[in-house]
Amino acid sequence: MRYKNLLSMASPTHTFLDQVAWNDQGLAPAVAQDAVSGEVLMMAWMNRESLAHSVAEGRAVYWSRSRQKLWRKGEESGHVQHIREIRLDCDGDTILIKVEQVGDIACHTGRKSCFYNVLSDAEWRAQEPVLKDPNRIYGHKGGGKS
Amino acid sequence: MRYKNLLSMASPTHTFLDQVAWNDQGLAPAVAQDAVSGEVLMMAWMNRESLAHSVAEGRAVYWSRSRQKLWRKGEESGHVQHIREIRLDCDGDTILIKVEQVGDIACHTGRKSCFYNVLSDAEWRAQEPVLKDPNRIYGHKGGGKS
Repeated sequence: MRYKNLLSMASPTHTFLDQVAWNDQGLAPAVAQDAVSGEVLMMAWMNRESLAHSVAEGRAVYWSRSRQKLWRKGEESGHVQHIREIRLDCDGDTILIKVEQVGDIACHTGRKSCFYNVLSDAEWRAQEPVLKDPNRIYGHKGGGKS
Repeated sequence: MRYKNLLSMASPTHTFLDQVAWNDQGLAPAVAQDAVSGEVLMMAWMNRESLAHSVAEGRAVYWSRSRQKLWRKGEESGHVQHIREIRLDCDGDTILIKVEQVGDIACHTGRKSCFYNVLSDAEWRAQEPVLKDPNRIYGHKGGGKS
């Protein structure tokens, strides 16, 4: 089930937005998990507006803290995250979204998941393959957010 | 593989601790995922000390922001998280731990996962079963952290 059908429902009531325990910056961490494989893909931040847009548009819309603007995941890379389910934890301060990951790549490095550094013998070792060269993902703009 | 064998290795070098991009409060979000099922169990916070202890002890040790002290997951509930793998994301500011969840319950409400509220028709609805009454988990202390 995608959330596009919530577009009309999300407009009249924002109670579910009020029920999130946003932090003092108005943000909550949002964990994105592959709806099929269960792999944890990334963690980013949402604010009230980005969660509302995520629900209304059926795709992950984060809040970019560095750019201080909405960040529609995939807007540059094409690696859109279609939302299958949205969950909130017991404290109401962390969001979990289950997504269909377009391109099977969530990370700006060209890997499936951003969590590719594995601790081994007290060192972080990159262990996941780069599926697509970032230069090919972002053209000649030299990278940036995914 | 558990991390108990890193006890001696973690002592001489803390380079991997320096490589985490701790926030201005010295913290990083840590997502705990069931190593077997892939279910996302909870999100809590770690600081440098708690990550060092997690590695050394082979179990999840978080930093309790409310109590301002180390929080050995399971210290009251018995629901210890044995660490199978520790990962760091591309930005170095979020930790993912894959765990064996003792008791199959991570949440202080007695549910397996803290992410039991599912957004449906613009409402958060609790959807996961309570596997154990919190009063039985915490005795007569009236709850508290897990």
